[in-house]
Amino acid sequence: MALMTGEEYIQSLKKMKTKVYLMGELVEDFTNHPMIRPSINSVAATYDLAQQKEYENVMTAVSNITGERVNRFCHLHQSTEDLKNKVKMQRLLGQKTASCFQRCVGMDAFNSIFSTTFEIDEKYGTTYHERFKKYMKFVQDNDLTVDGAMTDPKGDRGLAPHQQADLDLYLRVVEQREDGIIVRGAKAHQTGAVNSHEHLIMPTMAMGENDKEYAVSFSIPSDAPGILMIYGRQSCDIRKLEDGHIDVGNPKFGGQEALVVFNDVFIPNERIYLNGENEFAGVLVERFAGYHRQSYGGCKVGVGDALIGAAALAAEYNGVTRASHIKDKLIEMTHLNETLYACGLACSTEGVATKAGNYQIDLLLANVCKQNVTRFPYEISRLAEDIAGGLMVTMPSDIDFKHPIVGEYCNKYFIGNSKVPVENRQKVLRFIENLTLGASAVGYRTESMHGAGSPQAQRVMIARQGNIEGKKQLVKDLTGIKE
Amino acid sequence: MALMTGEEYIQSLKKMKTKVYLMGELVEDFTNHPMIRPSINSVAATYDLAQQKEYENVMTAVSNITGERVNRFCHLHQSTEDLKNKVKMQRLLGQKTASCFQRCVGMDAFNSIFSTTFEIDEKYGTTYHERFKKYMKFVQDNDLTVDGAMTDPKGDRGLAPHQQADLDLYLRVVEQREDGIIVRGAKAHQTGAVNSHEHLIMPTMAMGENDKEYAVSFSIPSDAPGILMIYGRQSCDIRKLEDGHIDVGNPKFGGQEALVVFNDVFIPNERIYLNGENEFAGVLVERFAGYHRQSYGGCKVGVGDALIGAAALAAEYNGVTRASHIKDKLIEMTHLNETLYACGLACSTEGVATKAGNYQIDLLLANVCKQNVTRFPYEISRLAEDIAGGLMVTMPSDIDFKHPIVGEYCNKYFIGNSKVPVENRQKVLRFIENLTLGASAVGYRTESMHGAGSPQAQRVMIARQGNIEGKKQLVKDLTGIKE
Amino acid sequence: MALMTGEEYIQSLKKMKTKVYLMGELVEDFTNHPMIRPSINSVAATYDLAQQKEYENVMTAVSNITGERVNRFCHLHQSTEDLKNKVKMQRLLGQKTASCFQRCVGMDAFNSIFSTTFEIDEKYGTTYHERFKKYMKFVQDNDLTVDGAMTDPKGDRGLAPHQQADLDLYLRVVEQREDGIIVRGAKAHQTGAVNSHEHLIMPTMAMGENDKEYAVSFSIPSDAPGILMIYGRQSCDIRKLEDGHIDVGNPKFGGQEALVVFNDVFIPNERIYLNGENEFAGVLVERFAGYHRQSYGGCKVGVGDALIGAAALAAEYNGVTRASHIKDKLIEMTHLNETLYACGLACSTEGVATKAGNYQIDLLLANVCKQNVTRFPYEISRLAEDIAGGLMVTMPSDIDFKHPIVGEYCNKYFIGNSKVPVENRQKVLRFIENLTLGASAVGYRTESMHGAGSPQAQRVMIARQGNIEGKKQLVKDLTGIKE
Amino acid sequence: MALMTGEEYIQSLKKMKTKVYLMGELVEDFTNHPMIRPSINSVAATYDLAQQKEYENVMTAVSNITGERVNRFCHLHQSTEDLKNKVKMQRLLGQKTASCFQRCVGMDAFNSIFSTTFEIDEKYGTTYHERFKKYMKFVQDNDLTVDGAMTDPKGDRGLAPHQQADLDLYLRVVEQREDGIIVRGAKAHQTGAVNSHEHLIMPTMAMGENDKEYAVSFSIPSDAPGILMIYGRQSCDIRKLEDGHIDVGNPKFGGQEALVVFNDVFIPNERIYLNGENEFAGVLVERFAGYHRQSYGGCKVGVGDALIGAAALAAEYNGVTRASHIKDKLIEMTHLNETLYACGLACSTEGVATKAGNYQIDLLLANVCKQNVTRFPYEISRLAEDIAGGLMVTMPSDIDFKHPIVGEYCNKYFIGNSKVPVENRQKVLRFIENLTLGASAVGYRTESMHGAGSPQAQRVMIARQGNIEGKKQLVKDLTGIKE
Repeated sequence: MALMTGEEYIQSLKKMKTKVYLMGELVEDFTNHPMIRPSINSVAATYDLAQQKEYENVMTAVSNITGERVNRFCHLHQSTEDLKNKVKMQRLLGQKTASCFQRCVGMDAFNSIFSTTFEIDEKYGTTYHERFKKYMKFVQDNDLTVDGAMTDPKGDRGLAPHQQADLDLYLRVVEQREDGIIVRGAKAHQTGAVNSHEHLIMPTMAMGENDKEYAVSFSIPSDAPGILMIYGRQSCDIRKLEDGHIDVGNPKFGGQEALVVFNDVFIPNERIYLNGENEFAGVLVERFAGYHRQSYGGCKVGVGDALIGAAALAAEYNGVTRASHIKDKLIEMTHLNETLYACGLACSTEGVATKAGNYQIDLLLANVCKQNVTRFPYEISRLAEDIAGGLMVTMPSDIDFKHPIVGEYCNKYFIGNSKVPVENRQKVLRFIENLTLGASAVGYRTESMHGAGSPQAQRVMIARQGNIEGKKQLVKDLTGIKE
Repeated sequence: MALMTGEEYIQSLKKMKTKVYLMGELVEDFTNHPMIRPSINSVAATYDLAQQKEYENVMTAVSNITGERVNRFCHLHQSTEDLKNKVKMQRLLGQKTASCFQRCVGMDAFNSIFSTTFEIDEKYGTTYHERFKKYMKFVQDNDLTVDGAMTDPKGDRGLAPHQQADLDLYLRVVEQREDGIIVRGAKAHQTGAVNSHEHLIMPTMAMGENDKEYAVSFSIPSDAPGILMIYGRQSCDIRKLEDGHIDVGNPKFGGQEALVVFNDVFIPNERIYLNGENEFAGVLVERFAGYHRQSYGGCKVGVGDALIGAAALAAEYNGVTRASHIKDKLIEMTHLNETLYACGLACSTEGVATKAGNYQIDLLLANVCKQNVTRFPYEISRLAEDIAGGLMVTMPSDIDFKHPIVGEYCNKYFIGNSKVPVENRQKVLRFIENLTLGASAVGYRTESMHGAGSPQAQRVMIARQGNIEGKKQLVKDLTGIKE
Repeated sequence: MALMTGEEYIQSLKKMKTKVYLMGELVEDFTNHPMIRPSINSVAATYDLAQQKEYENVMTAVSNITGERVNRFCHLHQSTEDLKNKVKMQRLLGQKTASCFQRCVGMDAFNSIFSTTFEIDEKYGTTYHERFKKYMKFVQDNDLTVDGAMTDPKGDRGLAPHQQADLDLYLRVVEQREDGIIVRGAKAHQTGAVNSHEHLIMPTMAMGENDKEYAVSFSIPSDAPGILMIYGRQSCDIRKLEDGHIDVGNPKFGGQEALVVFNDVFIPNERIYLNGENEFAGVLVERFAGYHRQSYGGCKVGVGDALIGAAALAAEYNGVTRASHIKDKLIEMTHLNETLYACGLACSTEGVATKAGNYQIDLLLANVCKQNVTRFPYEISRLAEDIAGGLMVTMPSDIDFKHPIVGEYCNKYFIGNSKVPVENRQKVLRFIENLTLGASAVGYRTESMHGAGSPQAQRVMIARQGNIEGKKQLVKDLTGIKE
Repeated sequence: MALMTGEEYIQSLKKMKTKVYLMGELVEDFTNHPMIRPSINSVAATYDLAQQKEYENVMTAVSNITGERVNRFCHLHQSTEDLKNKVKMQRLLGQKTASCFQRCVGMDAFNSIFSTTFEIDEKYGTTYHERFKKYMKFVQDNDLTVDGAMTDPKGDRGLAPHQQADLDLYLRVVEQREDGIIVRGAKAHQTGAVNSHEHLIMPTMAMGENDKEYAVSFSIPSDAPGILMIYGRQSCDIRKLEDGHIDVGNPKFGGQEALVVFNDVFIPNERIYLNGENEFAGVLVERFAGYHRQSYGGCKVGVGDALIGAAALAAEYNGVTRASHIKDKLIEMTHLNETLYACGLACSTEGVATKAGNYQIDLLLANVCKQNVTRFPYEISRLAEDIAGGLMVTMPSDIDFKHPIVGEYCNKYFIGNSKVPVENRQKVLRFIENLTLGASAVGYRTESMHGAGSPQAQRVMIARQGNIEGKKQLVKDLTGIKE
């Protein structure tokens, strides 16, 4: 079973006993919950598209471990071509779901842990790398969706883990045992946590000597004893509970986040990939963040494509396609969106092989990529709202459009171009609302801001990678300054 | 009864028979509907603040018509000082409600109709101005909230009113009678429509000879026969139906919009202020738009103040107050916000007296003001989201925080600065969500974009008012170009 | 002689023995030096325009000291109307000279010293204020141009004045005498220094207890013994030495800066306005900076008007007036320019009376004004370069256009619209070059950046004036946060 | 002689009889003229760096025509790796010269003519491609610098070539002869024209049926009979005539432009590559523009590196290295600069093979690249001016620093960090002035704007390449819209 279908994926989730709380309730069958299902559909799309011949090259790759064709989300990048194809796969999925499809975090974790464990072993003679390769084989053989989990709750950001009032505010090892470890803590903002078969845990930042117990990495099934998840609210989330789907905007797809709590969970030795070698925590974080900052140069571009298309469609339905300012705004949206894509491609094509043999991205350019992502989707959204017009936020509910009395007025007065059914206008405006204000704005805006690290985190890296001293030397050479 | 209290205002609404449909239902007592009440509270604040001595100067003025002290929202501006105080009143209300308080449209309509009717009468010997003065006395004596209604549905924007497939897509006179007129059509995006005692109708744009029947202005009680309203959906609107109010973000205040339908409504002669004098439609629109573009230099600044405060509070609760990038972002937010205020004040202080004696704003600067409003609140929002952090969109529902099982985890893991209760953090993050993605984002973002005219409308006015020919002449003089 | 003409002003300068060094030479008659004369012409325009009836209201005012009508540049602002008129006068002069006209620094120094001396006297029983009033009478009676001088060289910015390797890097009192003081040091970047009758010196920043000798303010004729000036280079400065003036761009007007050196200069007691009362140094700086940050909301707007006009003219000569993107860029330039003006007006209309009776501007809004000035002229310039086209920087010299052989080709191939002489095109392109890259770019760009304090100085003030605590309280009230 | 040294290049120029007029004079030995020499030095650097082993990979390539190692500027790109190396070579040269090094236009012309001639021959059975291959062999064998010349003077932009008042305003064939053609017209803004061995002419835009005589491409030695050049003025150009070089800013390197006039020049048949096949004019322009828009993602990035270094150095000399706002501005400059680089790399790595076998860039991404170049260097410049401080434009001439009297004051008062000689500060500030206001601002700013086509040209291409229809379809699929 190298490649599952989307349907098989959903069935596989049904077999799990994942504990999910949503708005105060323990969800029975989370795969059928109307608020959760759209995000499962998004992940399912990562399986379905991999089945299509036309996308084979972009959606799959031949595994360096098994020699089999695997879903690219489970692949260890073997070349800069692989890195570029990753970005293209993400753009494709962004286009097809207009959502966060959640499976990237696993892929980015695979690649960063793979190279880091190699280097830990090199230094300490440990066997983390072999263990991890076995884990990768398991993941690839079963075509699993894995939540690569990094972000700890963090408490007071001014204090180190061991200085916090509550020592669990960073996930940690509370007991070292012969056969494994016991961990406690939580991972916050976990995209796709609920829909994942497995969790692959990493530390949240560089760790000092005093924080060795926080320097831990391991994998674990999502329904292991001691794990529970609390579902995060999104803007307009409960519209999904209404009948009819026009007001939801994106009726089929969505993203989601959860707090994943680890209550003294046992992790067997063969699932541990870092355990106290604190100086490698920072390396791991930097690599994961690097890959993940690259990712945004693909996924958000795909979503941006859909938003640009929606704005163009809204303009058409309003009858203003030929206004020069409308055309110019669509050009600007395209320009910004492609600039993000350019950054995603550039950090890929400039990638280099790690000691372990897989490829990592160019760190400076990946940070530049993500920094732009913290800006341009906001401007693209603003332009989309400009083109859409105010009706996007003043339109009555779809129920009103179908109402025996007021339905008539809704249909009479909300017509634009008289050849286009009002329903089409409803759909496209709700789609734009969804991406700019609604549930998917969480993914398209706020996640663009904070996912893979907040803007300031990238700026720190840009400063570190920018080689200012070398640049000063250029000027000294050019002007003959001697010091 | 020159000045009502907020409570008296609410009671006065209860006496009305306004027909409001909301999500497919005719609302019984709209003043108590949990989705509508917050917007009523916002309007009520315009009454309550006028009762407070400390705000007397900004919230009230002495009427030139009655000689009585009236709510400034019912006042005809008598000086540039009045124009500035209008902006200050709006900033105050924005600060106190963090919402659209909906009563400005009436004030802006009063002032533009007042001066325009004077000029129509001057040309045609009509008596619109006297009629309107009487109406103003009625409004001031009863301290009414009036919806100044301009925007027609418009259908295909490429076609004039009389060219539309459905002639009603612009509101029009369908019958001229001895004692009045019969009108049909609708006004869209009507902010505060539901909460207003009266509707004061204006044409939506300049009208040509073929569109004389669309050149109409009149006033009418909101519950007159033939009028019905259909409530617009806002992002996260149905959160207001949940128990508890933390997740709403702004528990007390809000804004709203509705489609107001006029089904062959009779308007008696004494309530008509324009009826076929089509060349004045454009004048009226330009003046109203001018006043209303000024308004945004007050109200959105007040809301911005609250959003800046919230971001500062979120930073404090996260324990990052002293980070230089946080400080710098708060400065930038303040800078942008005050730039908007500067534009609001500038177009006020450069105001001039109309022929009718009231004051109008400087048209160029008011358009510049609004143009900035179509940009800066978006950037202020972006920066607020940056400072807030991702938790704003991944935090579980308030129900979870109070849940017997998961409540413990929510409270354990979402603590920031350990001295601040988690609930405070919840409140401030939900407040920011509300303004950037939620129900109030409709007012703070989309309304900033499209209210008082979309960005391109301002650009057209800036081009017209910018005196490019005079500027060219400067250069010819400076460089000695002769033509 | 309440009001001089421009010509009288120039004659009055000729009588002075001001020592000016320019490119290694002591200039004989600086009023006739081709590199200096344009800046004198700019100041002369401040005299000539004051003679014109149509500008009387904006260019002159009735002195509160003498009761005579004086040039507004010598006036102590008596109202917010005066503050607004100051800005309007500055815009007018910017339009008429497309340059820095240099006389504002004196006006801003007058007003800040006037109110500060009043408060020093109040505290210390000194008589600075009376002295200064006498000085103001002298200035007004003789219609003088005065260089209000603040900026010290500053050496290492990480060190206080008394910590510098060379104690003279901030201007200081080196001897206290019965009849006066001896001062040593320099003032850098002095706009208009060479063309001023007098110098009015202020400290450069707040001074601590250890820097009392640097807390000094006084006035002195520009040609007093011990003073010498070294002229600063500007971009393209020596083009002014060429024959013909088309390549200069702005053939008549310009600005200039100089280093003014004080070599143990004696200042008599009646010309001293601060001498060791160090806690008032900061007050004085803040007020002067405030006034001067307001100024930029006038002068740069006037220059911007000319640049917009030039861009429009260039478009016309290129035959592209009707291209929508050209129109849109002119709108954007106008929009940005008027936003600056709005800020200038706003901080004026919100001005308040000082204890001494003259008016000062609103500090927050004046800082916001200047902060925008550090950005928008750059964008206006960029758009002007966009519209102008590359010819602006590749056009041969005017000599070539008049050359017997190549002149023919220049005139043949650089024609645009065939009805416009090539010379007009030359003129307008050189004019744009002058403002964006040439001598006047120093005033329009770099001075916009650093004049009246660099951007960060404004940000510090915006932080201080922004009332973040009050804004936090708004949110606590709105959400019911109790602490 | 596959690879010349810089010195050999200069000697080779000396042998030519190129006719250059500069400020009204026919220049005797242009290689030694102080205003021209810096631009020759920049080109010479393209030869010298190719001699260095460490840069072999980036500066040279193995020719597909000769099998020899050639300078990459003479190379036909054989892979996306070649395309990327082109960008890296350009960044390197930008870093080493901080100037426009002028040799790119030839390289971009080679590659676009190579593939276009192949396609013309395919359609018409002509032999242009073989001719051009022979020409390429000649160029590579002799390591020539070639001016790829495209831009015609254009006259009135509203009129087609054949509609102009003067038919020569676009370069054209005035006579078809058995052995060749006679051409007349001019090429404007020709970067590096004077320093080139050869000129390679292309049409300036798509040509219609009526403009067949303007659809012409050929090569010709720069000193062929009938060709003359008129040198363009740059900001601060005549500073290069002064003694000492500090005030020039960049003492060794520069760029230049000229008008190249063709007075009935004879072109033999073997040097003609397009002659009336007008439908290929547009193809050729689009390809050349595409390559050249890619180029800016390399060269300007290199110059930006130097400007960032200079700003960092200026901050160091001012003693403000540790101020957080300074650090943040350097990060922002780096971020913007690397975004340009990312775009340059992205359009390269996405390149594709042409029918002729060489590689062309991705057209959409190349246009996105250049569009960013019309913006970011301006912002980088603005930030550099911010960091540099006002002294950059008020500093006296270097003569003053060396003057017996005022030199002392200059050296006393312009010291920053007391450990750094004033001369170093002079040098770095003049370097920044040079790039932001001076001679090199022509290359870094205006050329960034207009080189390879003005911003609107890129927007037209972005619109054309953006696949809006495909994007609309995405939304229809996602929301179930049927039309």
